Amino acid sequence: MECLSEHACFGGVQGFYQHASTTIGLPMRFSVYQPPQAKDGPVPVLFFLAGLTCTEETFMMKAGAQRYAAEHGIMLIAPDTSPRDTGIAGAADSWDFGNGAGFYLDATEAPWSTHFRMESYLVDELRALIVQQFPARADAIGVCGHSMGGHGALTLALRHPDVFRSVSAFAPIAAPSQCPWGEKAFTHYLGADQSTWDAHDASSLMAKSKAPFPDGILIDQGLGDKFLEAQQLLPEVFEAACRHAQQPLIVRRHPGYDHGYYFIASFIADHLAFHHRHLSA
Amino acid sequence: MECLSEHACFGGVQGFYQHASTTIGLPMRFSVYQPPQAKDGPVPVLFFLAGLTCTEETFMMKAGAQRYAAEHGIMLIAPDTSPRDTGIAGAADSWDFGNGAGFYLDATEAPWSTHFRMESYLVDELRALIVQQFPARADAIGVCGHSMGGHGALTLALRHPDVFRSVSAFAPIAAPSQCPWGEKAFTHYLGADQSTWDAHDASSLMAKSKAPFPDGILIDQGLGDKFLEAQQLLPEVFEAACRHAQQPLIVRRHPGYDHGYYFIASFIADHLAFHHRHLSA
Repeated sequence: MECLSEHACFGGVQGFYQHASTTIGLPMRFSVYQPPQAKDGPVPVLFFLAGLTCTEETFMMKAGAQRYAAEHGIMLIAPDTSPRDTGIAGAADSWDFGNGAGFYLDATEAPWSTHFRMESYLVDELRALIVQQFPARADAIGVCGHSMGGHGALTLALRHPDVFRSVSAFAPIAAPSQCPWGEKAFTHYLGADQSTWDAHDASSLMAKSKAPFPDGILIDQGLGDKFLEAQQLLPEVFEAACRHAQQPLIVRRHPGYDHGYYFIASFIADHLAFHHRHLSA
Repeated sequence: MECLSEHACFGGVQGFYQHASTTIGLPMRFSVYQPPQAKDGPVPVLFFLAGLTCTEETFMMKAGAQRYAAEHGIMLIAPDTSPRDTGIAGAADSWDFGNGAGFYLDATEAPWSTHFRMESYLVDELRALIVQQFPARADAIGVCGHSMGGHGALTLALRHPDVFRSVSAFAPIAAPSQCPWGEKAFTHYLGADQSTWDAHDASSLMAKSKAPFPDGILIDQGLGDKFLEAQQLLPEVFEAACRHAQQPLIVRRHPGYDHGYYFIASFIADHLAFHHRHLSA
């Protein structure tokens, strides 16, 4: 693991790192905010999964989350949103697929399946690296995400409830099998056979569950979000699935707020407090 | 004035705008954060002047200041750091001079003097535009800045104490006549005759003053700041000038903090509170 830069921040350390990922088969970058409490021993951890076109820097730079992480003593981890420099033809052609759009799953279809293995990378390799290299509590890990990263947070939490004790999201792609972004990504990464898609669709996974997170899930959604209007997000599908699964869910709809980081910054405090309650319990 | 984009943020509005500046002779961009209190009538205003290479977006995106501006009911204004697309030969050759490096003064030397007129632009034209177009209190304006913008904040406040009621800075270029950044900029913008430089050097201006801001000036400085070590900032020269001028000054030196926005974000709350105290008095 190579340290690219470290910066004092709210009494803790904001760091950017790179390592040779065996899962991805390429170098991967990630960022870590260590709160001041981490100097005294292991602290709870919150993974934040960013959206399309973002990198490991976006959330740390724009959300203003470190202030609340320092208050609660939570370590923040932000991975990159896809492998980079894969050399795969077409990986750089779209802003919503390929580079910056790994969708937090392991692709099964060539040519993507070699490097686009973000689920195994995050849940196994990066998680192990964080616990090994930083004062992180392996038994107190939560996950939050935005847009494509909201999809990632919900699906990874539902697929790995043994790993993630708390989950929340901002404007998640909540039913990717039914929206253009998800259909494009799943077709290329998972293949045209839609029977394989359910296992990576938060609403489908939830509908087959029974209250997997009994202490609740928190979602914030702006009502001025153009991607909500464009039917890319479909929170109502996830809500119906949660009702079916008797999963407690709070969806807060905010008039006027859009899809960007000024929206995330406005409500990130509540997500840090939410995860703190669950992870410190 | 053209609205480029507006975003709901902490109950207020984060906006980006462009207008045809008669002072600069070119289009200029700026950003405004209107706190929720501005819906009910005019509120105090804080100009934030950014550093080398920054734009009107940098502070709004990276500092996390809107949260505190919303708490205190302060409007934030961030101008761009120089004219753009001037067509002047050499304007794009350096990261520390020309584009992104207007130094918040009116150049007197050709070819810069035509467009590089940031002082008149900010103090006269943009200030009038803000008061006209936004619910801003003309009698309650403060100024803060970072690095080159810290120089801007200190010098503009000292040159226009009738305009600015409060002033603070992060890691300001506090004695530009004596550091490489300032010498380069002043030589090109003001000419080789150094007798003209004093009027744009915060330490020189302060040394000739008598407690111009009797309620105090606040400066934060990181001790892990490589530009402090490189003698670009020279806060000790400004401190000596303040002692001479009997100007109350608080310089807070923070071990480990560097020159970037993770430093600014960590302490911006105190600056918003500082200006709130002075501007709401």
